[in-house]
Amino acid sequence: MIIVMDINATAGQVKHVIENIEKRDLTPVIIEGQSRNVIGITGETTQMSMRDFEATDGVSEVIRVSAPYKLANRAFHPEDSHIQVRDRIVGGQELAIMAGPCSVEGEEEIISIAKRMKAAGANMLRGGAFKPRTSPYSFQGLEMEGIKMLVKAREETGLPIVTELMSKDYVDEFAEHVDVIQIGARNMQNYDLLKAVGRTQTPVLLKRGMSATYEEWLMAAEYIMSEGNSNVMLCERGIRTFETETRNCLDIQAVPVLNKLSHLPVIIDPSHAAGTREYIAATSRAAVAAGADGLIIETHACPEDAWSDGAQSLTPDEFDKLMEEVAKIAKAMDRTLPEVK
Amino acid sequence: MIIVMDINATAGQVKHVIENIEKRDLTPVIIEGQSRNVIGITGETTQMSMRDFEATDGVSEVIRVSAPYKLANRAFHPEDSHIQVRDRIVGGQELAIMAGPCSVEGEEEIISIAKRMKAAGANMLRGGAFKPRTSPYSFQGLEMEGIKMLVKAREETGLPIVTELMSKDYVDEFAEHVDVIQIGARNMQNYDLLKAVGRTQTPVLLKRGMSATYEEWLMAAEYIMSEGNSNVMLCERGIRTFETETRNCLDIQAVPVLNKLSHLPVIIDPSHAAGTREYIAATSRAAVAAGADGLIIETHACPEDAWSDGAQSLTPDEFDKLMEEVAKIAKAMDRTLPEVK
Amino acid sequence: MIIVMDINATAGQVKHVIENIEKRDLTPVIIEGQSRNVIGITGETTQMSMRDFEATDGVSEVIRVSAPYKLANRAFHPEDSHIQVRDRIVGGQELAIMAGPCSVEGEEEIISIAKRMKAAGANMLRGGAFKPRTSPYSFQGLEMEGIKMLVKAREETGLPIVTELMSKDYVDEFAEHVDVIQIGARNMQNYDLLKAVGRTQTPVLLKRGMSATYEEWLMAAEYIMSEGNSNVMLCERGIRTFETETRNCLDIQAVPVLNKLSHLPVIIDPSHAAGTREYIAATSRAAVAAGADGLIIETHACPEDAWSDGAQSLTPDEFDKLMEEVAKIAKAMDRTLPEVK
Amino acid sequence: MIIVMDINATAGQVKHVIENIEKRDLTPVIIEGQSRNVIGITGETTQMSMRDFEATDGVSEVIRVSAPYKLANRAFHPEDSHIQVRDRIVGGQELAIMAGPCSVEGEEEIISIAKRMKAAGANMLRGGAFKPRTSPYSFQGLEMEGIKMLVKAREETGLPIVTELMSKDYVDEFAEHVDVIQIGARNMQNYDLLKAVGRTQTPVLLKRGMSATYEEWLMAAEYIMSEGNSNVMLCERGIRTFETETRNCLDIQAVPVLNKLSHLPVIIDPSHAAGTREYIAATSRAAVAAGADGLIIETHACPEDAWSDGAQSLTPDEFDKLMEEVAKIAKAMDRTLPEVK
Repeated sequence: MIIVMDINATAGQVKHVIENIEKRDLTPVIIEGQSRNVIGITGETTQMSMRDFEATDGVSEVIRVSAPYKLANRAFHPEDSHIQVRDRIVGGQELAIMAGPCSVEGEEEIISIAKRMKAAGANMLRGGAFKPRTSPYSFQGLEMEGIKMLVKAREETGLPIVTELMSKDYVDEFAEHVDVIQIGARNMQNYDLLKAVGRTQTPVLLKRGMSATYEEWLMAAEYIMSEGNSNVMLCERGIRTFETETRNCLDIQAVPVLNKLSHLPVIIDPSHAAGTREYIAATSRAAVAAGADGLIIETHACPEDAWSDGAQSLTPDEFDKLMEEVAKIAKAMDRTLPEVK
Repeated sequence: MIIVMDINATAGQVKHVIENIEKRDLTPVIIEGQSRNVIGITGETTQMSMRDFEATDGVSEVIRVSAPYKLANRAFHPEDSHIQVRDRIVGGQELAIMAGPCSVEGEEEIISIAKRMKAAGANMLRGGAFKPRTSPYSFQGLEMEGIKMLVKAREETGLPIVTELMSKDYVDEFAEHVDVIQIGARNMQNYDLLKAVGRTQTPVLLKRGMSATYEEWLMAAEYIMSEGNSNVMLCERGIRTFETETRNCLDIQAVPVLNKLSHLPVIIDPSHAAGTREYIAATSRAAVAAGADGLIIETHACPEDAWSDGAQSLTPDEFDKLMEEVAKIAKAMDRTLPEVK
Repeated sequence: MIIVMDINATAGQVKHVIENIEKRDLTPVIIEGQSRNVIGITGETTQMSMRDFEATDGVSEVIRVSAPYKLANRAFHPEDSHIQVRDRIVGGQELAIMAGPCSVEGEEEIISIAKRMKAAGANMLRGGAFKPRTSPYSFQGLEMEGIKMLVKAREETGLPIVTELMSKDYVDEFAEHVDVIQIGARNMQNYDLLKAVGRTQTPVLLKRGMSATYEEWLMAAEYIMSEGNSNVMLCERGIRTFETETRNCLDIQAVPVLNKLSHLPVIIDPSHAAGTREYIAATSRAAVAAGADGLIIETHACPEDAWSDGAQSLTPDEFDKLMEEVAKIAKAMDRTLPEVK
Repeated sequence: MIIVMDINATAGQVKHVIENIEKRDLTPVIIEGQSRNVIGITGETTQMSMRDFEATDGVSEVIRVSAPYKLANRAFHPEDSHIQVRDRIVGGQELAIMAGPCSVEGEEEIISIAKRMKAAGANMLRGGAFKPRTSPYSFQGLEMEGIKMLVKAREETGLPIVTELMSKDYVDEFAEHVDVIQIGARNMQNYDLLKAVGRTQTPVLLKRGMSATYEEWLMAAEYIMSEGNSNVMLCERGIRTFETETRNCLDIQAVPVLNKLSHLPVIIDPSHAAGTREYIAATSRAAVAAGADGLIIETHACPEDAWSDGAQSLTPDEFDKLMEEVAKIAKAMDRTLPEVK
C-alpha cells in the first residue's frame, strides 16, 4: 500500500502517518519527492482497508498495490479451477453450454425444451423459477413449483440444472435440489445471500453486477469462498454504458483479464448482453474465441409466447445453428463441445 | 405503448401483432409510414411489459409511453408526500438533517456524537450497525448490539434513528426499534428485501443503485409501496461514471427530475458522492439550492480513527460550519432548518 | 417520428402540433390514449431534427423511428461495401491486417518494422506521424517528415499506409500520399475535419469516439459520405466505462450491430482497448470470430523503447504468434488472411 | 511517479527499471514488499509520460503522483485567476451570466434578445454562428454572417459576445471580433484548434468533453495555456452516463474539485445538461450554491421556433424568473449579480 501525502503536508503529519503504520506492525518506507512525500507500506496488507489512512490529515491519496482478494486470486492458486457439476467439469477442455428458457413455465414445457437442448448439444439446463423483475407487477416466477419441474427435467435428461436464487429463505432447498445456484447481477453485492451460498458446497454461477468493477466482482466471489465454498464460476453478462441499442455492453476483455487475475472459470451470457436474438451468434463465437469456459443462452420453443425475455431467446432451430458455428470456433481453440448423445 | 415494425415487416406480421393487441383487450392504431409501419396501443398498459411484443417477428422496437410505476407517480398523486418520522415531517418546509457516524462503534461514542449533532442542528441520527463492505475481511458492523446503542442514543437525545437493513432476518426487529430503515445502493434491486420492508409501516430511505436509472429506482420504490408501505424517501448518493477523483458522481438533476416524476421526498447524500471531506460543503449547499428535502451526512468525533469511511466523515466542527452555510441557502429557498434546542 | 404529448396537454396544444406537422407537408396520425395523446408523423422525416418539436408546449417527448443517416444505412444499400485500398479490398473475404508502430520514429525503423510485419502477414502498415497526445508536453509526432518515411516504407514493401490526420491543413498532402486517412477517436465529431476528408476520395478509417453511440458514429460517417467520399471504414477501439483495469472497454457487439445498421466495413483495434499487451490476443481472436473485417494492431521492434504506447505494442514475435492464432479463427469463419509473400 | 513491479518480476528486471530511471537523471527508491517490489521515482517528472515505463518487462503498473498539468495547476498558482472580458471580470465576486440563443438567427432577432437579456441581468451575450450538429443535414449556422450580427448586438448593448469556434480557419477573425471564444465539448481534444486559440489572447470558454476526466480537461486547458494564452474558463455542461431522462448528467462536484485542482474560473451550463427547460432553474441555483463563477444559459424569444435547441431554451420571462431565484442564492453566497442598468 502506498500513501501519497499532500504537497503541503507538515513534518508532523508525515510522522503521524509513520507511527500509525508502525502501530499495525507494518513497515513504512519514505520516498522524499520534489514536491511531496510518498510512504510505502510493506507487510501483510491484504485485509487492510485503503480507506484506513485516507482520513488522516495531510494524506492526499492511498493506493493499493496488492489485490484485496486472496482465495479468488491466481497469484495464490496458479492452476485453473475445475468445478465439478454432477458428472461434468467446468473450466476444463469441454465448454459448458447452459441453455433453456428465461422462466420455467410448466412441467411439460421444461422437459420438452430440456430434451431438445440436450439433442442440440447443451450440457446443462438453465431456467428461472424465482425471477428478479424490474416491475412488481410482472410475473415473478413459479418459485418452488418451478424448481420441482426443473428436477423432473433433470430426471428425464440427465442435464444438471442452473437456476437463480434470490432469497436466503430457499438456500437449503436449492442446496438439496439444484446443481448450480445462480446469483443474479442485481444481487452481486447482496452479501447476506453471498454468505448463505458460501455455506453450501453447491457450485455458484456469480453474475457480474450491472456496473461492478473486476475487483468488486472478485470480492463478491471472495465473500462466497471465504465462507467455505470454492466452487465459484464467474459470469459476464454485459455492463451498463451509455449505449442503448444493445441491452448491455458485453465486456469481452473480461475473459483475458479474469484469466489473469483469477483461477475461476469464466462463463459468458450473450443473451442478456444483446437483449435481442440477432446479436447472440456473433457474441457467442467471440466469447469462445476469447477463451471463455462456457456460454449460458436463453432459448424457448416459441419466443413470442415466452413469459419473459422472449426477445432475446433463440428458437431451438436458431440454437442448432448457433451450436454449429460455435463448434467451429471451439475446434480452432482446441476446446470441445459436449458430445451429443 | 408503441410498436415500431421492421422496414421489411410483412403484412402478415403486422396482422399478427394487431391480433395480439386485440387479444389483450387493447386497441391498436396503425400509422402507415413511408418506410415502415408503427402501431400505437391504447388502453391500460401500465402493468404490461414492453418486452411482451419485442420477441414477435417483424417487430423492430417497442416504446413505452406511460411510466410503468403507479404508486410512486406524481401523475396519480399530485401533492408532495410528507413522511412522518416520529415527531418530524420529511418533505415539508423543514429540511431533514440526518447526521452521525458511518458505523456505530460503541454506546458511549454514539450517544456523544448524537448529542453533538443535535446541538449542531441535526434532526435525525444516522449510524450503521449492519455494514455492507466490499471486502469480507472488513469490519461488518456491531449488528443488533449496534441497534441497541442507537436506541439508547435516541432515548438520550430524542433524535429518530436511521440505519441500514441488509437482511430480511432482522426486518421485524428494525420495524420495532428503528425510525427509518435505510436500503443501501447495493440492495436497491434486492426485491426480497424490498418486499419485506414493504410489509412494515416504517419509513424507508431508499438509496439509488450505483447505476440505476430514475425509472428503475422508482420501480424499486414501487416494490415497497405495492406491498403497502408508502413511506418511502428517495436518496441520491451519486452514480458510477468514468471519473475517479470523486467516489461517485452526484447527479444533482435527480432533484428536479424526481420532483417532476414522483411525489416522494428526495434526500441527498453528499458524503458517499464525494468520498472525501473537502467536497461535501459545496455539494450540500447545491443540494438544498436544487430543492432537496434533506441531507444525510457522515460525521465522526475523530475521522482518522473511524472504523469505516473516515475520509468522508466531517468532524463536529466541520459539521457546525456546514450547517451555517446550509442555513443561508435554506433561507434563500424558504426552507427551514431544525431549531437547535 | 412520434410525438408523445403531456398527460395534461390541452386540445389547443394538440391542434397546434398537428398544424405544425401539416405545415411541413407531413401527415399526422393521432392515437388517443387513456391518459395522453400520441401523434405519429408520416412522410420524409430523415432530415428533420427530433428537437424541432420538443420545444412546443404540451409535448412530452419526441421519438425518432427511422435512422437519421441515409448514406451509411444498410436499409438503402443492402450489400456490404467493399473499400479499395490500392490493390487490397477491405470488407471482402480477406481480412485487413493493419500493423505497425504507434509513432513513426525514423526512416530506418519504419522500413524495418514494415518488412517484418509484411513477412508476418500484415497487408497494411500503420504508423502515426501526427500524434494526438493528452499532454502538450509529450512528443507530438514527426509530422510531414513522418509521412515521407511512411511513403518510403510503402515503396520498399508495397504495403498501403494508414495514418492519422489531425488538422485540415494537411488534407491535400494526405490525399496525395496516404492510402488510408485515420480520423482518431478524439476527432470523431470534429466536423470541420470530417467534411475536409469527405471532399477527397481517399479511404477513411473512422474511429469511434470515446463515448459515441452507434448513431453518432454513423452520423459522423454520414458527414464524410455526404461530402462525396463513400470510402469509409468504421473502427471500434473501445469505449469509456467505469472499469480501469483495461484502457477502454471493447464493445464486441459493435460488430453485429454495425453489420445490421450499416454496409460499411468494421475494423477492430484491440491495442487501444486493452492498453496492455497481454489482453490483445484474446480480443483479436474474438473480433474475427464476431465477424470483423480486419484488425489494427500496434507493434514495435522494442516496445520498451517506443516513443509512445509501448505498453500496448506487441513485439514482432508476439505478432507472429497472434497471427497464428487469428489464422485458425479466420479459417473457422471462412475468412482468409493475406498471403505471406 | 511510482512503479509497481509484477509479483514474479526478476531481480534483473528490477535492476533494468532502476537503470532506466537513473538514465533520466531521476532517483529511484525501492520498497521491498512482501509479495512484490515497488519503485518510487523522485525528481522532475511532470513532463514524463507514465506510459514510458509501462512497456518494460516485469512492470505491473505505473502510478502518477503529481498532476501532469502545471500552468492550470493551483499548486503553482494559489490565487484564483481573474479573466478580463472587456470591462467585466470573470472569477471575481460578480457572477458571469452569459445568456442568449443557441443559434444566431438574424440581426434583428439577436439585437432584440440581447437587449432583453441585458435588461434581465445578463452581462454577456451568447449565440452560435458556427454550429456543431450531429447531423450533416441540420442547419450548420450563419457562420461569419452570424458573427457580424453578434458584433452589432454588442454595439447596441455593450454586452461582450461569447460564441463557438469550430475551425482554425476563423481563428484570426474570432480574435479580432469576439470577446470569448467557446471551444465545444466535441472539440475539447481537437489539439490543433486548442493550439490555435492558445496563440491568441482572447479569453476561451473550454467546455468539458462528453466523457472527459478532470485531468484530461485540465490538460486541454494546458494545451491552450502552454501556447501563451492563460485566459481560460472551464465550462461544465454535463457528462454522458446511462441515464436518458436528462440530456447529460451535470457533475456538480466539478465545482469544488476544479476549485481545488486549478485556479481557473468555473462556469456551469445547465441548458445542455438538462436538455429540457424544466430542470434548468434547479440546476442553476445549485451551480451558484456550489460556488460556480457563472452560468451560460440558452434563451429564445420563442423557443418553439428556435432553429436549434428550442426544448432547452428559456423564454425571456422564464429567464427573468430564473434570475430572481439565482439572485437569492448569489446573495447567500456573498456573490453579486451584474447590476441591471
